[in-house]
Amino acid sequence: MRTIALPRQNIKFTYDTDIKDSLLNILIAQQIFIESPCGGRSSCGKCKIKHLGGDLPPLSVDEEKRLTQKEIEEGIRLACLIYPNTDLEIDIIDQEENHPVLTGGYVPEYQRNPAIWKKPIEITKPTLTDQTPYEVLFEKALDISHLPWDVLRQISMGEGTYTGVFNQDQLIGLEKGDTSELLYGVAVDIGTTTVVTSLINLKTGEEIDSEAAINAQKNFGQDVLTRITYVLDHGKKGRNQLQTAIVDSLNEMIQTMCERQKLSSSLIYEVAIAANCTMMHMVLGVDPLSIGKSPYAPIFVEEKDISAKEIGLTALSSFGRVYCLPAVSSYIGADIVAGAYVAKLHDRKDKVLFIDIGTNGEIVLSNGGKLVSCSCAAGPALEGMNISSGMRAADGAIEEVHFHTEKGFILKVIGDKTPVGLCGSGILAAIRELLKHNFITVRGNIVKPEDLEGGDPRLSYIDLDGKKRRICIGEGPTKILITQGDVRQVQLAKSAILSGFVALVNAMDLTFADLDEVIVAGQFGAHLPVESLVGTGILPKAVKDRITYIGNSSKTGAYLALMSLESRQEMATLAKAFDYLELSVTKGYERLFVECSQFN
Amino acid sequence: MRTIALPRQNIKFTYDTDIKDSLLNILIAQQIFIESPCGGRSSCGKCKIKHLGGDLPPLSVDEEKRLTQKEIEEGIRLACLIYPNTDLEIDIIDQEENHPVLTGGYVPEYQRNPAIWKKPIEITKPTLTDQTPYEVLFEKALDISHLPWDVLRQISMGEGTYTGVFNQDQLIGLEKGDTSELLYGVAVDIGTTTVVTSLINLKTGEEIDSEAAINAQKNFGQDVLTRITYVLDHGKKGRNQLQTAIVDSLNEMIQTMCERQKLSSSLIYEVAIAANCTMMHMVLGVDPLSIGKSPYAPIFVEEKDISAKEIGLTALSSFGRVYCLPAVSSYIGADIVAGAYVAKLHDRKDKVLFIDIGTNGEIVLSNGGKLVSCSCAAGPALEGMNISSGMRAADGAIEEVHFHTEKGFILKVIGDKTPVGLCGSGILAAIRELLKHNFITVRGNIVKPEDLEGGDPRLSYIDLDGKKRRICIGEGPTKILITQGDVRQVQLAKSAILSGFVALVNAMDLTFADLDEVIVAGQFGAHLPVESLVGTGILPKAVKDRITYIGNSSKTGAYLALMSLESRQEMATLAKAFDYLELSVTKGYERLFVECSQFN
Repeated sequence: MRTIALPRQNIKFTYDTDIKDSLLNILIAQQIFIESPCGGRSSCGKCKIKHLGGDLPPLSVDEEKRLTQKEIEEGIRLACLIYPNTDLEIDIIDQEENHPVLTGGYVPEYQRNPAIWKKPIEITKPTLTDQTPYEVLFEKALDISHLPWDVLRQISMGEGTYTGVFNQDQLIGLEKGDTSELLYGVAVDIGTTTVVTSLINLKTGEEIDSEAAINAQKNFGQDVLTRITYVLDHGKKGRNQLQTAIVDSLNEMIQTMCERQKLSSSLIYEVAIAANCTMMHMVLGVDPLSIGKSPYAPIFVEEKDISAKEIGLTALSSFGRVYCLPAVSSYIGADIVAGAYVAKLHDRKDKVLFIDIGTNGEIVLSNGGKLVSCSCAAGPALEGMNISSGMRAADGAIEEVHFHTEKGFILKVIGDKTPVGLCGSGILAAIRELLKHNFITVRGNIVKPEDLEGGDPRLSYIDLDGKKRRICIGEGPTKILITQGDVRQVQLAKSAILSGFVALVNAMDLTFADLDEVIVAGQFGAHLPVESLVGTGILPKAVKDRITYIGNSSKTGAYLALMSLESRQEMATLAKAFDYLELSVTKGYERLFVECSQFN
Repeated sequence: MRTIALPRQNIKFTYDTDIKDSLLNILIAQQIFIESPCGGRSSCGKCKIKHLGGDLPPLSVDEEKRLTQKEIEEGIRLACLIYPNTDLEIDIIDQEENHPVLTGGYVPEYQRNPAIWKKPIEITKPTLTDQTPYEVLFEKALDISHLPWDVLRQISMGEGTYTGVFNQDQLIGLEKGDTSELLYGVAVDIGTTTVVTSLINLKTGEEIDSEAAINAQKNFGQDVLTRITYVLDHGKKGRNQLQTAIVDSLNEMIQTMCERQKLSSSLIYEVAIAANCTMMHMVLGVDPLSIGKSPYAPIFVEEKDISAKEIGLTALSSFGRVYCLPAVSSYIGADIVAGAYVAKLHDRKDKVLFIDIGTNGEIVLSNGGKLVSCSCAAGPALEGMNISSGMRAADGAIEEVHFHTEKGFILKVIGDKTPVGLCGSGILAAIRELLKHNFITVRGNIVKPEDLEGGDPRLSYIDLDGKKRRICIGEGPTKILITQGDVRQVQLAKSAILSGFVALVNAMDLTFADLDEVIVAGQFGAHLPVESLVGTGILPKAVKDRITYIGNSSKTGAYLALMSLESRQEMATLAKAFDYLELSVTKGYERLFVECSQFN
């Protein structure tokens, strides 16, 4: 294990020198995103870093070609061409001046024009000969035709300086004094499993703080269907419980960031939310039942711009707003629209497949800008749930596994602790190694010890529980076992995703070879190395060298909705441009699903 | 005392044959309004009634001229030309088919086009191949571009019949089934002393029920300034108390009407409110302090269209609205704009003075459609408050007084009960008689008994309390006395109103003789006969034969706002057309006030 430090960003992390990978991929695995439009294929020359310390291999021919003499003298290198194996100290080169860096996601260029803005005004006192009502004084000073009721009821007589707070062309609030420089928002990604929030300075676009937490709705079910069933069983009370769970979490997360930053939450005026369709219905308290029942028509998909306090979101200004990004359908949510937008799928002239791997897998195929999408119920296995030794990605979770014929299973454990269980990336890595070393057959069966020759190194890892075969990959407080059931869980998830992938490619009359890029999105997806994705057959081997990562593009989309009305408009347009392929009514889909369950 | 019956309207009342008056005026005194554009001067021929029973004087020449032969044969007569003195049975002839009759006020013609309307729709279930979100299904069926958030959160999956409820072009609610024939509203006049509500069928314009009550804010002060001072002393809590007092009253009054009519209050979708500026601020919970303090600029005067539940008005549909009529200034409120509109002041080619007599007196002078207004603090004396024997107009209240040299004081008591005190019209009638019979000098002093000759019939009514002279006009459980203080209260009120009247006439360079009509508005004003208004000098003698009554034109304005968007628009335009004369800064006003205090 070696260390990479980024002193300017105050980041330091370790990496595994056993796994030979490019510096670009090592950084992405840490959710540190550098612009790399070519996807790390050394053709764009954009993934520049500055070498500050430690040993690096000499400059390659490609680097010499793509860097200027001045850059070479300054120690600039291309991250996709460096395969480090020592302690390193580097700096990231921002391509654009003030180009924002968002934790956990690549941010494309955008036109800075937030929906929320402020205007300071002066009010002078009426006189006996000019008894103009205050309503009119404020309307004139703010240059609006109509002072909204919510604002009117707040005002009292009195001259002086005020600041009007606007949401687009609508006045939403009035503050005493000149507060025009103080303007904050929060970008939110609500995943079925994880919730991520970023506190944003709307004047500069800067991310000031971020916070992640497990979705408190998990107590009502691990996946969206279980939660919808909870609402079905518990009626309006159940719907309120689920709304309160997520809204309370958001209030707490925002409050935590504000306290850490010594910022009054009353200076936050907007929360932009990207989420899947069910989470969006639930956070707004809208009936989610129709999402869970054929024909799966949701109540809404269009963007929403509403008062935050109407949904109980109170950890911001009393007149704060909630903006919800637009979705396409029940199973192609605003998170995917955001991702497709961040990946600029609509602008691409080539053939690109975008895939968000989570409890639900959503896939979008762009054929020169024409978009078709599908959704597949992967289940929570890929996130370490429903797995006998599964756990979330916390200290003690195995996140990477290698099998050496002699050394046995080599584990990478989060926090370098005694292993306790497997998180999502760990279970995938384990299955990959078990497949590679034939612990598991292409049909997903764990090999029988009686079928192995004596002295086979695998024999010592097969653990029998009566007739049930299990593979022991390590030992912490207890044995860490992969059961036949675990393999089946991963197999179902892989089959769901791969069959969706194939169905989309077929629907556009393309082949794997036609795809120019496969973009893996999602905070979780960013933790799944190409080897695991391809090695377990989640993604076809044919696209192995065209896989790139974009990080939590859902949160990035929420960030863009906060920062740019133009981006909002473009996302709304993009959402309407999606075609949706309902796999359950696609001809031959069932046979395809069975075919895709094979590990080959 | 004789009886007049209107069998079709199920109305029966008694009238005093001692007071010779036209049938038109007798009906107006009972708040039964007939169209009489000429103000009872027998020139328009519109105040037609049908004679059903009892003796009437023979047809006059004027009646023969203005009625057709057919009408004469049918027993049609003109109410302004009949001076009845027997029991009568009559019917009112509606000038327009379906011309609405509103208790307590004349209703002009209007264009029926309520802001609130309904549209029934059918929703068919989505399918697996057409998963159109319910939001879009409803938008298409309702022909709107955007389903509002308030409605969206109420909908669930399911096909069937729904009814959209609209406020102008905005969808405000959705009901299951076809409810399009059920559509109600409430017209409200909030006076400083009295609150009146009418339940209106918005489909027909019919008044279904009405309810009046004392403004519960009276516990916080009898006039607006005292109530504003209460808010000043008690801050936001005080403001909430005053809002709650009036809003709770409205909820109770609406509930009472609904229970009496067996109507679900959820079928009421709009409450239209006319009120003075302070009452309007208070019912909406807006800060009223600036109204009470120089330079008297209010927070708002423009019309308001807001959600009823936002102000705690809950005795109607959960998505019901409140519409507040526009005002001109702190002391020319929406009640006066409504009155000026109902009186069609803006359309008049002649010179008309409109006066609303209440705790505050507001006067509007229309010079061929050009409007100038003023406001005078009459105080509550004219409504029987701050008067030693004062009481509200209830059973036992003296409402009319006559003095006969031989018979002494003849009292008309509400409910024909033993007299308990004097209501507003009674105190004015008493002062009128005392002036007429020289109990009081032009300066307002009660005559000294020592200045009267022995045997003067007045002597026996002068009651001495030490040196204080009082006049005993009757006796119930206790003596009913008019004190010098009572005379001064009326004198101040008279002076306030008359000086405003004169100042306005002067401001437009007119004389009393130029005025074609003086319209007395207000539910209270309708109870003050011409003799009392002129006999006490509240209105100048010069206009005596040009005084007409219009009833509670404030409530009628609220009714028109419910029933007609065109009327709303016209009232908003009218409010902006008012000039306002601030008496306190008018040159020579103080001297004028003193001059007007003389009873001459």
